[in-house]
Amino acid sequence: MTQEEKAQRFRELHHGPPILVLPNAWDVATAKVFESAGFPAIATTSAGVAFSLGYADGERISQDEMLGVVARIARAVSVPVTADVESGYGDPVATAKAVVAAGAIGMNLEDVRGEDAETLADLDAQCRIIREIAALHLPLVINARTDIFLAQVGDPTTRLERTIKRLNAFREAGADSLFAPGVRDRETIAALARGVRGPLNILATPGTPSIADLQALGVARVSTGSGLSRAALALVRRMANDLSQGSYDSMFADQIPYAEVNRMLG
Amino acid sequence: MTQEEKAQRFRELHHGPPILVLPNAWDVATAKVFESAGFPAIATTSAGVAFSLGYADGERISQDEMLGVVARIARAVSVPVTADVESGYGDPVATAKAVVAAGAIGMNLEDVRGEDAETLADLDAQCRIIREIAALHLPLVINARTDIFLAQVGDPTTRLERTIKRLNAFREAGADSLFAPGVRDRETIAALARGVRGPLNILATPGTPSIADLQALGVARVSTGSGLSRAALALVRRMANDLSQGSYDSMFADQIPYAEVNRMLG
Repeated sequence: MTQEEKAQRFRELHHGPPILVLPNAWDVATAKVFESAGFPAIATTSAGVAFSLGYADGERISQDEMLGVVARIARAVSVPVTADVESGYGDPVATAKAVVAAGAIGMNLEDVRGEDAETLADLDAQCRIIREIAALHLPLVINARTDIFLAQVGDPTTRLERTIKRLNAFREAGADSLFAPGVRDRETIAALARGVRGPLNILATPGTPSIADLQALGVARVSTGSGLSRAALALVRRMANDLSQGSYDSMFADQIPYAEVNRMLG
Repeated sequence: MTQEEKAQRFRELHHGPPILVLPNAWDVATAKVFESAGFPAIATTSAGVAFSLGYADGERISQDEMLGVVARIARAVSVPVTADVESGYGDPVATAKAVVAAGAIGMNLEDVRGEDAETLADLDAQCRIIREIAALHLPLVINARTDIFLAQVGDPTTRLERTIKRLNAFREAGADSLFAPGVRDRETIAALARGVRGPLNILATPGTPSIADLQALGVARVSTGSGLSRAALALVRRMANDLSQGSYDSMFADQIPYAEVNRMLG
């Protein structure tokens, strides 16, 4: 598939059923595991990549380092890769071009800045950015995100209404997919799915309705954020604690054989 | 601690009891988890780093890329870091200098080359390399490794004797620690510990005697190679398979909270 075909294929995957389930990789090995498991596309997690390279989440990492990992992943797998690039590292339009140059065919764009998770970007300004990126006609699926729920911004009673308003403005500006992380409650999810005029992306966190339920509620895309990365780190911590107590138990409970990982990466 | 103090401290840790237990990290996040678990030193795994960056193990990765990860880890933790640099990427003396420049205070040096795991390096030539590295008087603990057991080289009945001969030659040439991966049987481990004239490093793989037993057998250092990395990948595969079946179960069973990982890396 050319990059254009990958972008087109990825865009189509938002118009199921089935719901698009996107696992988020943080390095090449995890991306290869997801590809081997049969996922039709792979996302990255900005937090997972940042942790792996030694940063807290929230744009402490440079655009170059983040996209270096994205490029490694995009080179290594044949399925479409969409990049979590936070709020675009100070220059979202340049970042969009760099995402495509890295071989990815999609990007997330947040409406909060890394270190200030509670101040939303001005809506008109954010829509101008999305319009500018869309006008480039890149092979790029824009997943526009609002953090109203995730960062608990403003009056709780108006969050749903404000989220729908923002996401629809993003859609009109040219976003392909609309991301509202931080929502778990099924009534709110259903209301979002009814209210937004484009494919709705929900983040799977503990308490989120099942994937089958999300599909029934009208959700188009479900992703895992940094959850898989933090679950892997929890196992690493468990293995480390066992090992420091003199036990190999958790380390040897389940390993992919050396030769098999080599074949997968070879 | 200065780099010299770290090297000195790390060298002393080979002269316990207690036995030195070294977990092998493959990125900054895993190294930080090991440091938080209280390990007095951290190793890297060449295979784990290679997998993470998209390569099979065995020097398909460049020295620069491998040491780039080592440098990130060494910057991020305060405990001594020893680097798995395979057989030195074609120029082991230059690699030794680069390991120290990357902030690490130890290196492994294998006596087989990446893609040809069954042909041992000429013993005299390998000893010359070790002498040359030792003569640099770097703050560097040299862990010299023979793959006779791991790669099952030559007549099985003479492997023990040949391993002891090689490791003692490495020791005389200036190696600080002597590594015989691929040995699990307790009689062979005891014979190795008696036969080598320096601290013995054993690789923990399924079937290896317990850490307490290794200490009782006279082993000075036990490391995990790519085992922790491949266990983490096994969990990633399990989570991916569950997710592709519509289940979050393995993903949500145990996660380090987002805020906690951020604090650890911040």
